[in-house]
Amino acid sequence: MATEEIKLVGFWVSPFVFRVEWALKLKGVEFEYIEEDIFNKTNRLLELNPVHKKVPVFVHDQKVIAESFVILEYIDETWKQNPLLPQDPYQRAMARFWARFAEEKLLDAAWTSMWSKGEQKERAEKETLEALEKIEEQLNGKTYFGGDDKIGYLDIAIGWISYWLPIWGEVGSFEILDPKKFPGISAWKTRFLDHPVIRDCSLPPRDKMLEYFHKRGQEIYNSRLGSSGK
Amino acid sequence: MATEEIKLVGFWVSPFVFRVEWALKLKGVEFEYIEEDIFNKTNRLLELNPVHKKVPVFVHDQKVIAESFVILEYIDETWKQNPLLPQDPYQRAMARFWARFAEEKLLDAAWTSMWSKGEQKERAEKETLEALEKIEEQLNGKTYFGGDDKIGYLDIAIGWISYWLPIWGEVGSFEILDPKKFPGISAWKTRFLDHPVIRDCSLPPRDKMLEYFHKRGQEIYNSRLGSSGK
Repeated sequence: MATEEIKLVGFWVSPFVFRVEWALKLKGVEFEYIEEDIFNKTNRLLELNPVHKKVPVFVHDQKVIAESFVILEYIDETWKQNPLLPQDPYQRAMARFWARFAEEKLLDAAWTSMWSKGEQKERAEKETLEALEKIEEQLNGKTYFGGDDKIGYLDIAIGWISYWLPIWGEVGSFEILDPKKFPGISAWKTRFLDHPVIRDCSLPPRDKMLEYFHKRGQEIYNSRLGSSGK
Repeated sequence: MATEEIKLVGFWVSPFVFRVEWALKLKGVEFEYIEEDIFNKTNRLLELNPVHKKVPVFVHDQKVIAESFVILEYIDETWKQNPLLPQDPYQRAMARFWARFAEEKLLDAAWTSMWSKGEQKERAEKETLEALEKIEEQLNGKTYFGGDDKIGYLDIAIGWISYWLPIWGEVGSFEILDPKKFPGISAWKTRFLDHPVIRDCSLPPRDKMLEYFHKRGQEIYNSRLGSSGK
């Protein structure tokens, strides 16, 4: 293990980077974390990920992989201990389906609800709640999305719901995760954040994130002013 | 095998449906094809895929799976013969990465270049060619994207490039696949379409597709008139 090169290039507040960090920690794989400034990209990032120029980038013995979902599958296939995906092909398909669903239907909507205003914000809030309802149904009494006693691929893929989502809601003055509407996700959120491995990854402080997303939201809103608002 | 229920719900002109059909044929898995009218959706579709209400839907012994990439992985894990994905985790990651790249960077751009006009069309054409350049580099002298002598996951995932893309280009009066610019993809296109299994899936006639996409393009353009054009 000592000679293996395992590096994660990230950015402190990126939920996509934390996915990879969580996966590696759940597997007990040691790695070197390299912080990247995504607003002032280094040549290192541009060389490692010339296609998307984004974090996370995962480096394993000179093999370079981008895109967090692709990295998660690679990690799961390379280090077999503590499997992230279920063993059964249909259960694997469901985990992948809902991970992608949250990415496409929930993440954008929740993000937009944070910084937008007026009709656009209303529409984004509605889409956020509709997507969350579908995710709530998936828990269906289970402890984790991955099953009863184990954090798995889907928990990691949508782990940002536990910490980023309420912060985006606060920035956008929109109570996204009302525990009465979403009792399952609310209870899962606490369990997820209390999980020893997730706790060990030390998420950024709440006040620092509030400040960051408040500023980002304002910047995005300003940059869209005068455009169509879509 | 006789008692196994294997069904594919599709729509005659959908490239996403053909992905699944190609995968099943490459595996030698027999299935029942059910044509759906996506402009007049049946209760069957709404019940099978209540989340996205889209084709393809794959049914295997009462297990229902939507989303073509998720279905491809399921098929590959369930029927082990003629593997679609490579065996090596890094090669698997690359296949998944480029499949997703083409979906996010090429497909939308090429589609938009077909029906849009003016500045929007120019931008879409530019994005289409830029994405194609990256895909051209991936072939890098290989016979197929999956390797030297075997159609694999990535070939199937981007198989629409071989037949749909030139048709979209023709509808949009834009020569997308200039063989001089893209010699690798142009040669791959012919090999892919000539592959006995792909030939066996009998693609819809070219003139019928031209007519269909001409009409669709016009409808989409008209529906966006008066909106922001984005």
